[in-house]
Amino acid sequence: MTYDFWYWDGIPGRGEFVRLALEAAGIDYRERAREPGATAKTVVQDMKSDRAQPPFAPPYLQAGNITLGQTANILLYLGEKHGLAPDTVAGRYWVNQLQLTIADLVAETHDVHHPIAASEYYEDQRDEAVRRAANFREERIPKFLGYFERVLNGSDGPWLAGGQRWSYADLSLFLVVDGLLHAFPRRMSTVAARCPKVMALHERVAALAELQDYFASDRRLPYGDGIFRHYPELDAE
Amino acid sequence: MTYDFWYWDGIPGRGEFVRLALEAAGIDYRERAREPGATAKTVVQDMKSDRAQPPFAPPYLQAGNITLGQTANILLYLGEKHGLAPDTVAGRYWVNQLQLTIADLVAETHDVHHPIAASEYYEDQRDEAVRRAANFREERIPKFLGYFERVLNGSDGPWLAGGQRWSYADLSLFLVVDGLLHAFPRRMSTVAARCPKVMALHERVAALAELQDYFASDRRLPYGDGIFRHYPELDAE
Repeated sequence: MTYDFWYWDGIPGRGEFVRLALEAAGIDYRERAREPGATAKTVVQDMKSDRAQPPFAPPYLQAGNITLGQTANILLYLGEKHGLAPDTVAGRYWVNQLQLTIADLVAETHDVHHPIAASEYYEDQRDEAVRRAANFREERIPKFLGYFERVLNGSDGPWLAGGQRWSYADLSLFLVVDGLLHAFPRRMSTVAARCPKVMALHERVAALAELQDYFASDRRLPYGDGIFRHYPELDAE
Repeated sequence: MTYDFWYWDGIPGRGEFVRLALEAAGIDYRERAREPGATAKTVVQDMKSDRAQPPFAPPYLQAGNITLGQTANILLYLGEKHGLAPDTVAGRYWVNQLQLTIADLVAETHDVHHPIAASEYYEDQRDEAVRRAANFREERIPKFLGYFERVLNGSDGPWLAGGQRWSYADLSLFLVVDGLLHAFPRRMSTVAARCPKVMALHERVAALAELQDYFASDRRLPYGDGIFRHYPELDAE
């Protein structure tokens, strides 16, 4: 079965967390918003179409007659169906738990540049963003990455959930670290020294053989005006 | 097995989403932070204790030798283990998806009064909160509750996931609506007319026979300085 994957075109966004899992596992999918003639309107129309279980927002995945919304939920499904997470009871919930913590970090990263309203311009909430960014840099980045460092220290292998194979949460941690390096290069230059295992995981995923074709392709978009944005005024050591 | 449940004492907080499921299903649990002699320090010490799978933050649930963190993850586990969600593949992911959308609304509700930093006083970010609250009232509350109204319109029963029995997502939707009624009574007075099925679900859960003992007990705390706070300056029709 080929999955139909729906996300806004033009930015990697939250869709990228799903895309990395699909690409790394070699799962067939169609990127519906990037097909010829598709526009943002195509996505909006599909979202409004008649479904018993409508998604709240992209990304969502059409898997036969099941529509899966919410990034962590899509990954939970793909993880179970395609073996991208341990199949023990404890391992399954553990990877889901890690993914939800990554999702919290992603949401906070977005809100740094949009602390007032996602629907308003950054320029109209820059003063508030500067305030929020200071707290994010000083408290939140170290807290989250310190947590994942602790998890990796307790793991019996090089990956978050242990063992010798990556899970979808490893791909997601790679992406959020990669995005933070892009958005907050000065802050990350000082935080990185305190979380060497997190940084090593980032390098390890970047080098995964199964992702090299994707990374070299035009399917991988630059961060642009998505979640991970580099505004020099929001960054500092 | 009696579960050990960990959350900060003093507010319902995110812990309440788990508590409602435990109480409504008659599941045995110990509220560890409310035992004699327990303080916030007790929770912090437990969080720092040696675990292969440490939680990032409360709430978390100790289920034998499995520690489950992240509200939606705990509920997914309880739902599967105790039949608090449909046991079909489609139904299981659907309820998880709904719960994650509720979690997004909960996080946004919190950030209305803390748009700059969760660790700073409301009074020190009130100006920003006033700005964020306007967007939350005008765009976000209608968008989220409108979505759940659409879901209920498409359901084959009175509950979010259909059928004649509530799922844990129904309990959570009740709580967030109840919290919004507390925090934004003026705004909710105008939004309620547009989402009658959501409001009816709120009434239906409030009247559930299996929750009356809990609601009458001192285990149910007032909203206080938790997620759902009533600041008149943040509310308007």
